[in-house]
Amino acid sequence: MSEFLDQLCKRVPGLILKTEGADVAHACTDWRKRYQTSALAVLEPMNTSQVQAIVKVCDEFNIAISTQGGNTGLVGGAVPAAAGEAAARQHVVLKTGRLREVLKLDESNLTLTASVGYTLFEIQEYAQAHGFLFPLSLASEGTCTLGGNLASNAGGVAVLRYGNTRELCLGLEFVDAQGQLCGDLRGLRKNNTGYDLRHLLIGSEGTLGVVTTACMKVVPAPKSRCVAWLNVDSIQAAVDALTFVQGHLYGELSSYEWMNAQAIDVVQTHFPARAPAWPNGGDHVLAEFTSLGGEAELRDSVTATLELLLENQTSVRNITIAQNGREMDTFWALRENISEAQAKEGLNVKHDVACAVSQLPLFHDVALNAIAEHGVDVNPILFGHLGDGNLHFNLSAPKGTDSASFLKQHQDLLNSLVHEAILQCGGTVSAEHGIGQLKAELLRDITSAGNYRMFQAIKLAMDPKNLFNPGKLVLM
Amino acid sequence: MSEFLDQLCKRVPGLILKTEGADVAHACTDWRKRYQTSALAVLEPMNTSQVQAIVKVCDEFNIAISTQGGNTGLVGGAVPAAAGEAAARQHVVLKTGRLREVLKLDESNLTLTASVGYTLFEIQEYAQAHGFLFPLSLASEGTCTLGGNLASNAGGVAVLRYGNTRELCLGLEFVDAQGQLCGDLRGLRKNNTGYDLRHLLIGSEGTLGVVTTACMKVVPAPKSRCVAWLNVDSIQAAVDALTFVQGHLYGELSSYEWMNAQAIDVVQTHFPARAPAWPNGGDHVLAEFTSLGGEAELRDSVTATLELLLENQTSVRNITIAQNGREMDTFWALRENISEAQAKEGLNVKHDVACAVSQLPLFHDVALNAIAEHGVDVNPILFGHLGDGNLHFNLSAPKGTDSASFLKQHQDLLNSLVHEAILQCGGTVSAEHGIGQLKAELLRDITSAGNYRMFQAIKLAMDPKNLFNPGKLVLM
Repeated sequence: MSEFLDQLCKRVPGLILKTEGADVAHACTDWRKRYQTSALAVLEPMNTSQVQAIVKVCDEFNIAISTQGGNTGLVGGAVPAAAGEAAARQHVVLKTGRLREVLKLDESNLTLTASVGYTLFEIQEYAQAHGFLFPLSLASEGTCTLGGNLASNAGGVAVLRYGNTRELCLGLEFVDAQGQLCGDLRGLRKNNTGYDLRHLLIGSEGTLGVVTTACMKVVPAPKSRCVAWLNVDSIQAAVDALTFVQGHLYGELSSYEWMNAQAIDVVQTHFPARAPAWPNGGDHVLAEFTSLGGEAELRDSVTATLELLLENQTSVRNITIAQNGREMDTFWALRENISEAQAKEGLNVKHDVACAVSQLPLFHDVALNAIAEHGVDVNPILFGHLGDGNLHFNLSAPKGTDSASFLKQHQDLLNSLVHEAILQCGGTVSAEHGIGQLKAELLRDITSAGNYRMFQAIKLAMDPKNLFNPGKLVLM
Repeated sequence: MSEFLDQLCKRVPGLILKTEGADVAHACTDWRKRYQTSALAVLEPMNTSQVQAIVKVCDEFNIAISTQGGNTGLVGGAVPAAAGEAAARQHVVLKTGRLREVLKLDESNLTLTASVGYTLFEIQEYAQAHGFLFPLSLASEGTCTLGGNLASNAGGVAVLRYGNTRELCLGLEFVDAQGQLCGDLRGLRKNNTGYDLRHLLIGSEGTLGVVTTACMKVVPAPKSRCVAWLNVDSIQAAVDALTFVQGHLYGELSSYEWMNAQAIDVVQTHFPARAPAWPNGGDHVLAEFTSLGGEAELRDSVTATLELLLENQTSVRNITIAQNGREMDTFWALRENISEAQAKEGLNVKHDVACAVSQLPLFHDVALNAIAEHGVDVNPILFGHLGDGNLHFNLSAPKGTDSASFLKQHQDLLNSLVHEAILQCGGTVSAEHGIGQLKAELLRDITSAGNYRMFQAIKLAMDPKNLFNPGKLVLM
């Protein structure tokens, strides 16, 4: 394959190309260190033309391309395939982090156009410096890139108000399997001229092309914020309260996070923050509201609505509105530290599931009942973006038992019970993490024949040699 | 072809099938009576299974399917092709208006699931009866159907706040070229499990499959409304005012409609309503705000913001806030009667163009200058959804001249000058009307080679025999 690398160097002048063992190994290891694969080289193009030239050479030599942004994905989508036919292919890792040619903001069009190598945090900061909010926000924002966000249709904590990465994108440019530049960056809010290539690329996990630049929506930065904590009887009570609150403050509600009692217990065991109305049993909700108006007006509206809620819905036990920024931070810390607190207690079986908001209570009961019926004793640490229908349904070992042997013994069964339950309730086994190589076989097994055949037909049409990320998302 | 019709009757029990000359001619004539084509029969399935069976029989006999909702489209997309290779194919017209199996609303998930045969008006009414707003709204809403809205990605007057049909759809089911049912109706707000078939079908104008049912977003019905009229120096002043207003009332602004002085002149010539601050020269803007809060609070916020605007932006001449519902209706009547008023003066050359909001003033000047440079005297009646970057750039004959000979002499040149200008400004030649058969050749000519090749590859992959709407959107 030295001929391939020679051609790359010759036809992509100035390309940063790394073949040192340590560099390659680093780029071939995923975030969770679940996959350790190999590649001929790591390529770090500086601009779109270099990406086009790379794809053309790879096409000629039939070398597979594993595109990688910040490499923070959770399903092995950004490293070469470790198993199956795809693993037998020769790969390069194409790192997009140096694609930083474009970064600009259009205040009248409310759009930000950026090369995909910028980190999400850089893009947030850039928007903020201009008085705008780029609403995408996730735990890995300091490291993940815009390219990875687009490839995986990243979600995060503000989806309820602003949507996923998909809903924030007005256009993108990508290099196709022939090395041609496709798509557009016009930033149009209305444009009915052909099939929507943008939405086909978003969430395609690097299997249809290499996205190089995108035009994203921004919104005027909110000026006021109000955070409330609700203590409620159950997940059904949390759903009912959401419906009520949306009827009054649909435009202001920006987060609605639910946590069960066990989740609050575990976070209070390992962190100093204390939940309002604890110990009071029941479940908990954190609701955040933001607006472009004054702080006092927002707080008055929220207070009035939540007082009405408390009067009208007996399954709401207690409501506390944060009195200042410090209290808001405390409320958020409770929510955000759950994962870390749970990790401190050992390994656990994680699920990233979603269904219609109205079906969440049913799913909750169906899943826990199925686990009980199979005689598995678990400590359910359940929480998530209830307003989006998305739960992190994490199952820990019962207190005082060994988490490693719990995992070994029960992981497969728990996965299949939770997946069965969510599918039975019309939901999805991957709300925001995607499929990658981790869930590619699962996806094939649970997708209808018609839809899967269509996935394969699209992949074959757009990437006939299966150059882009073989063995991920859709199996050919 | 009697064998084909026999098979249809046999294999699709109960199918309503019309072959009478008048029925067929009616279904083969488009809304604007620009196309009068022919078909073997008009098929009116009552349910999804019948659609599947129809497609299977058509596939066997290689009969093309022209799918038709309310037949209100403006680009000949809903009637069989009149020219080119596609016109030589034998067609059926598949009318979807009897697909009315499903209509339901999920208050907690904020979704409405409906068969595509319901008219947009029926769906609006259904949502309203449950206390919700289905925000899509267009002139043809009494006749057009959900299916047509999805196929054409319909826009309308509330796109600024709520998006196009695309942004309102959470999932759809469609029958593919093999007669298989694809897609889903789960109504998920987060779901990263494969390519987004929904967005591929939306705006595909019946060329990739027959959509039968869709899951759409609803929002809590606004309780208050406030309408303001702005008199401004120019289109640039209108854009600057929009940017200012969005900085304060981004969440409340639901329409922002611009009209030039000539548009207001013509509507006042034929209708009784009078614009505030007229005659004062300059352009005009109608801005509508809505909220879930009280009428007085909304009016106070709007008043405060617009007073600030008047202080800060000298290119804003005058602002009037409607004092009651009657005045709101008067303001809207001015905007909505422009098309009819213009029609009363004779034929005109219409354009449905869009670009980034920030580029609209440039486009406006480039287009009018190009027309002047070519020595064509026109009366430009310009108006549209400025907040979405979408203008109806309609060119009438100068006053006192014959509109028919004006059209005959100048239409082609004016079309090409306006299209050149909008493309030069990074815009699109079809903002909301789509391509159909009217603009299929234009689309091929102006689309980049890479994008057009991808359109063809997708079409071929999903509909290898080109059964669905041949000769529309993408030419094979």
